[in-house]
Amino acid sequence: MTAPGTSPAGPRFEVAPWSIALDGLDASRLAHDESVFGLSNGHVGWRGNLDEGEPRGVAGSYLNGVFEEHPMPYAEEGYGYPDSGQTVINVQNGQLIRLLVDDEPFDVRTGELVHHRRSLGFQDGVLHREADWISPTHRRVRIESARLVSFSRRAVAAVRYRVHAVSHEVAITIQSEALPNEPLPITHSDPRVQELLTTPLVGLDSDVIGTTATLVHRTRESGLSVAVSMDHAVTTSGSAEPAVTTVASPELARTTVRVVLAPGEHVELIKVVGHEWSATLSPSGLRDRAEAAVTDAGHAGWDELVREQRARLDDYWACADVEVEGEPRLQQAVRYALFQVFQASVRAELRSVPGKGLTGSGYEGHTFWDFEGFVLPVLTSTAPHAAEPALRWRHSTLGHARERAQHLHLRGAAFPWRTIDGRESSGYWPASTAAFHVNADIAGAVLHYVRATGDQAFEREAGLEMLVETARLWVSLGHADSAGVFHIHGVTGPDEYSAIVDDNVYTNLMAQRNLRGAVASARRHPEVAGALGVDEAELDEWCRTADAMCVPFDEARGVHPQSAGFTEQERWDFESTSSEEYPLQEHFPYFDLYRKQVVKQADLVLALFFAHEAFTPEEKERAFGYYEELTVRDSSLSAAVQAIIAAEVGQLDLAYDYLAEAATLDLDDLHENTSDGLHIAALAGVWTAITAGLGGMRDTDDGLRFSPRLPDRVRGLNFGVRIHGQVLRVEVLPATVTYVLKEGPSLTVRHFDAEVELHAGHPVTREIPRARDRGARPSQPRGRAPRDASVAFAL
Amino acid sequence: MTAPGTSPAGPRFEVAPWSIALDGLDASRLAHDESVFGLSNGHVGWRGNLDEGEPRGVAGSYLNGVFEEHPMPYAEEGYGYPDSGQTVINVQNGQLIRLLVDDEPFDVRTGELVHHRRSLGFQDGVLHREADWISPTHRRVRIESARLVSFSRRAVAAVRYRVHAVSHEVAITIQSEALPNEPLPITHSDPRVQELLTTPLVGLDSDVIGTTATLVHRTRESGLSVAVSMDHAVTTSGSAEPAVTTVASPELARTTVRVVLAPGEHVELIKVVGHEWSATLSPSGLRDRAEAAVTDAGHAGWDELVREQRARLDDYWACADVEVEGEPRLQQAVRYALFQVFQASVRAELRSVPGKGLTGSGYEGHTFWDFEGFVLPVLTSTAPHAAEPALRWRHSTLGHARERAQHLHLRGAAFPWRTIDGRESSGYWPASTAAFHVNADIAGAVLHYVRATGDQAFEREAGLEMLVETARLWVSLGHADSAGVFHIHGVTGPDEYSAIVDDNVYTNLMAQRNLRGAVASARRHPEVAGALGVDEAELDEWCRTADAMCVPFDEARGVHPQSAGFTEQERWDFESTSSEEYPLQEHFPYFDLYRKQVVKQADLVLALFFAHEAFTPEEKERAFGYYEELTVRDSSLSAAVQAIIAAEVGQLDLAYDYLAEAATLDLDDLHENTSDGLHIAALAGVWTAITAGLGGMRDTDDGLRFSPRLPDRVRGLNFGVRIHGQVLRVEVLPATVTYVLKEGPSLTVRHFDAEVELHAGHPVTREIPRARDRGARPSQPRGRAPRDASVAFAL
Repeated sequence: MTAPGTSPAGPRFEVAPWSIALDGLDASRLAHDESVFGLSNGHVGWRGNLDEGEPRGVAGSYLNGVFEEHPMPYAEEGYGYPDSGQTVINVQNGQLIRLLVDDEPFDVRTGELVHHRRSLGFQDGVLHREADWISPTHRRVRIESARLVSFSRRAVAAVRYRVHAVSHEVAITIQSEALPNEPLPITHSDPRVQELLTTPLVGLDSDVIGTTATLVHRTRESGLSVAVSMDHAVTTSGSAEPAVTTVASPELARTTVRVVLAPGEHVELIKVVGHEWSATLSPSGLRDRAEAAVTDAGHAGWDELVREQRARLDDYWACADVEVEGEPRLQQAVRYALFQVFQASVRAELRSVPGKGLTGSGYEGHTFWDFEGFVLPVLTSTAPHAAEPALRWRHSTLGHARERAQHLHLRGAAFPWRTIDGRESSGYWPASTAAFHVNADIAGAVLHYVRATGDQAFEREAGLEMLVETARLWVSLGHADSAGVFHIHGVTGPDEYSAIVDDNVYTNLMAQRNLRGAVASARRHPEVAGALGVDEAELDEWCRTADAMCVPFDEARGVHPQSAGFTEQERWDFESTSSEEYPLQEHFPYFDLYRKQVVKQADLVLALFFAHEAFTPEEKERAFGYYEELTVRDSSLSAAVQAIIAAEVGQLDLAYDYLAEAATLDLDDLHENTSDGLHIAALAGVWTAITAGLGGMRDTDDGLRFSPRLPDRVRGLNFGVRIHGQVLRVEVLPATVTYVLKEGPSLTVRHFDAEVELHAGHPVTREIPRARDRGARPSQPRGRAPRDASVAFAL
Repeated sequence: MTAPGTSPAGPRFEVAPWSIALDGLDASRLAHDESVFGLSNGHVGWRGNLDEGEPRGVAGSYLNGVFEEHPMPYAEEGYGYPDSGQTVINVQNGQLIRLLVDDEPFDVRTGELVHHRRSLGFQDGVLHREADWISPTHRRVRIESARLVSFSRRAVAAVRYRVHAVSHEVAITIQSEALPNEPLPITHSDPRVQELLTTPLVGLDSDVIGTTATLVHRTRESGLSVAVSMDHAVTTSGSAEPAVTTVASPELARTTVRVVLAPGEHVELIKVVGHEWSATLSPSGLRDRAEAAVTDAGHAGWDELVREQRARLDDYWACADVEVEGEPRLQQAVRYALFQVFQASVRAELRSVPGKGLTGSGYEGHTFWDFEGFVLPVLTSTAPHAAEPALRWRHSTLGHARERAQHLHLRGAAFPWRTIDGRESSGYWPASTAAFHVNADIAGAVLHYVRATGDQAFEREAGLEMLVETARLWVSLGHADSAGVFHIHGVTGPDEYSAIVDDNVYTNLMAQRNLRGAVASARRHPEVAGALGVDEAELDEWCRTADAMCVPFDEARGVHPQSAGFTEQERWDFESTSSEEYPLQEHFPYFDLYRKQVVKQADLVLALFFAHEAFTPEEKERAFGYYEELTVRDSSLSAAVQAIIAAEVGQLDLAYDYLAEAATLDLDDLHENTSDGLHIAALAGVWTAITAGLGGMRDTDDGLRFSPRLPDRVRGLNFGVRIHGQVLRVEVLPATVTYVLKEGPSLTVRHFDAEVELHAGHPVTREIPRARDRGARPSQPRGRAPRDASVAFAL
């Protein structure tokens, strides 16, 4: 991340409560805008490429789980290094609709683009585009397209594409295509890998049946078959009948529409695209499924697809919506964030959610711990039906995780640091294999999901087994010293500027929760536990291990070191580090980052949140101040967490600045890499920064606790959270908070330290106690303070 | 290293005091024998391939400094990772002499090999071979070849090749060749690298001028030109005149000899081969140099080449020879080791000495810290004229080392972990970039060389600058804590089963010596120091830094931890580790090795030797016992060091077992990889284990100290050491030791704690004090005890 930028001329995107829009077209920002306007349902992802395909930043059409496998090159081999890597690929691109006006190709770089606007609505999930264009031969046309990736029909994306003749009678030719093997950005230096990824798809089958064209391809190495099918409905307001033909070959499927329009007339094309993939199905079986999805959706029609879309989103927003009074840009940003989290996950089903969702090929399309750590808790609290299958996906990969543990001479399961299909796909072990906390993060998501939903079936069928296998991992990974204290040595915590450390506080506390959670879950389901080979002796061992867990504390400084000895390390020389030298990892060697006090992203501060009950308020305040001076936020995961703890320790202005950073990270491209895709975990963090930060919400053994406080610029805030199938809305004003239980029997929460019993239909209002005097605002490393929220949210 | 093997049927190689010989030919041991019989002068290296080229284990003809450059592939890139690697290549092979007997190719795998013997003499450096062979068509011939790589003529190797007709009149055809692009063993998985290394040499020029044929080739990427020239003298005892023709093309240079021999007659071929390489010379310039070397050596003739060889070795043995009474196999092994150390280094001149010398392509032909740490001190004490140019080679690479330091944001110079030309060529930073101790090892070799030779010119011209730049590195690498204690965090010490540790005792003590040595040297040469920008303030800083150096000590256990916290780590589970799981690095992940108490090779125990003055005798004894239980000797560098300290702490039997392991490591192929080349540093360690182990020799601020003690099986031992141009011989008997100064004015040494003043021609005999009672023999990890010396040395 470069120094958080400013937006001197106000935000690029139009600020509105329920949409995001952009007028004009900036050639230098194409890839960024494609990510921002990306559509997805968690299964199919279409970047916001222009319909006509070019110009483009990065072509992107993804199916969750479709990747190519490639050799992993190592300068020096080592035991346990993965042999092969996985990289998301472009599937056959069904977005493409090329337009010719009197044989002149519509290209925004030629002729005159009188007007261009794209807008994405958060209530219907439809991306609209308008272009008013005068061709080089002076024919003026207006193009309106609308695009959706369906939430109700997992395989389906659709486009409504309209061309209006404005100035002359024009011959319109529309070529609507599905195109395989569009290139990915080159990120591998190994030419073998480049070659594999340049044309990953081999044609298996291409058909035109009626008006439906289908392409079936297969990846060379990973052996996954992908079918993309398309059908079109063509209408015109004019008198001339459109001529429609469809062809398909392994290189291309194309439907061509030719029609002559008089001025004022238009032609409309409804394109429905179906996507299916499989590792096992036959090409014809796969083709038939893709075609069935297309036929069904085509039969429903565009308006019905939009209606369905809106219904799904209405249901989501009923709980998830956050209302912010007094700060329009935050209002937009939080809805945008929640919309993208929903898009990334809703139909992922038995698949992971990649770090970038399906909005870009960044991180090679891999999923990381931040899905379970940052995204899943938000889904659990707002859309638990999307959280459960994602946890079941992890469960389905337990075989790989057990194998990995065994290969590493450990017991239980060791989940991968980065993967698409569940196998470890990381090539740098100090920041991957050693980052065992991923297992506790997954266990934490299981525990939170079970506690928040009460979903016993899930716990029995999947959750308990994950808790058991991760608990076994911790016991075998650590060791008790002669005094009986349990240590976990030589691992890497969340902060990627430290590695291979002893007793990382975050890891140890999360492992402790993992162990205790496994014991509790096993006691709830003794027969399942028994079938998993868990006996009383093992439960005892987990209890003892959890109780004996080492949590280092620096008595002299009165703070928890991030890991043993951390506070004794040399401090990074921030004064001599220029803003061009961030992100540090691109300008300094790992050995130097690892051995000094410099923090890439919240680590101990993340422990203050996730394991909040393990720290006193004074410890939190001291720790937050200490780590603020060291944290450079070269990771997008940090700002939201810092917002949460800043708010807890009474630094409300600083919390708000961090919230602003999280909220504008992708929209303002603060890390200058949103072109590779959105930061889904950071977007999820916006909700968490609002609910846990400004709302002071904590998940405790005794239920939810709230201690909300609003910064001056926010006049009101309300948000919802699902708990045991009930929806609780929390309406915060500067001096009071009202708790509204929307449905269900009753719920007990805590307002600051007082219990509040809630019943549906009986809102309860409580005063917010006066804040105690806060200390001085903590300082950040030179040049790394967040920009002021008033700048970030300026209109 | 696998469990130290036994040699059930006695040693493979014939035991003799001044030679090593092998009867017969074992197809499964070809590569091992090629390494053992390798010839070299430090510039040219010929593996002991059979004259006729096949069968072979690994073809090997090397020129020191000739390598190919290739891309370094990384699964995940990182700042500071080297872009390109370096790999030694085969130069044009001038060894080849193919023989046809009545058109039947001489091949030891066909016909009947009645007798086959190879023997290598340590006094003349000539490898002799005899073969008595009956061809498939029943022609019997006797072949005698003798081969040398000249110590007096750097570019020259020569072969005397004789064929005797025994049974019939036979038509003899001899094809004597120089052949480019013979393959190396494949060690890179990257096909780009494989392709580069398969045919690294591109033909530039091929000539036949008179009877001299020359090939000039160039490497594709590193751009080094290599000329190999050959000439032949052919004589016969018979009446038929040999027909001799010579051709050359870029694919091959060949001299063909045809002659008919009657039974009892023989033909003799003297082949002289010249080798030159350059990064800058023109092809014709290079060709002319190679031809000049050949012409000159051809003119001198075979006998003169052998005489020169013997003269050089006589000079070497005058000081270097070690005489062992009562243990013939040790006698042979120590002379073999000293011979190979001499061969590897004597004409390396302004080049490094690779880990394998020029006897194999193992470690890609790279040089490591063990050259300065283990080999150079032996050269300094026995052949200082070979030590000095090797140190000057390091000095010549200071530019690369300064650049590397700067790139790592450090001051001074950071020498590479592994390299051929001085640039870092390692692809795994935790075991390379982080192993900064290489800089102290180089500085230590400089300090030892200057102290042992008094070579002021070297110190002024090269030594001081190396000391200054490494001293600067340490100051910038470490930091002082609030109490003023200087720490070096996040580095890797000699033990490769630990990495990225804080305050490695070895590193810190060696850095301390480096700093103090730099101060002392700068004070000796203030004008040079001034020109290097060293002022009083900097000298003060070095003194203060050295004085403040952290040396962690575990008070509870009464031992120095290898690095901070080491003794608190979990112990490796040796009981559950099977012998097939060694070497551990091939069966366990680094993360697990790094975080547990398991030691690959002497680290703290090496500090007990190199920084012997920093430890009390009691600390040494406790530390040795402690680390014995943890040290698995998966590195060849360890046994000699353990021998030295075992002897010092009174464990003489154990010391002798370790000496036996070091002495037989390559001859008995204990690590099962001598096929890749000899372990030059381990061979040097044999001398050190004898002189510093059994001889108790230490280099101290007050000169040499001796405290010799003989194990029961050794009835007498004498060795020599060069000090300030004088040769001191130390003659040890079970109860007495006699110090003999061979030449020079006078010398003061210490015998145990007493000073002894020595004058040339006046031997002084002293009694060896009675050893105090030794403790129990320390134990090693299960299955990792050294084999008993009586087994290792059994005849």
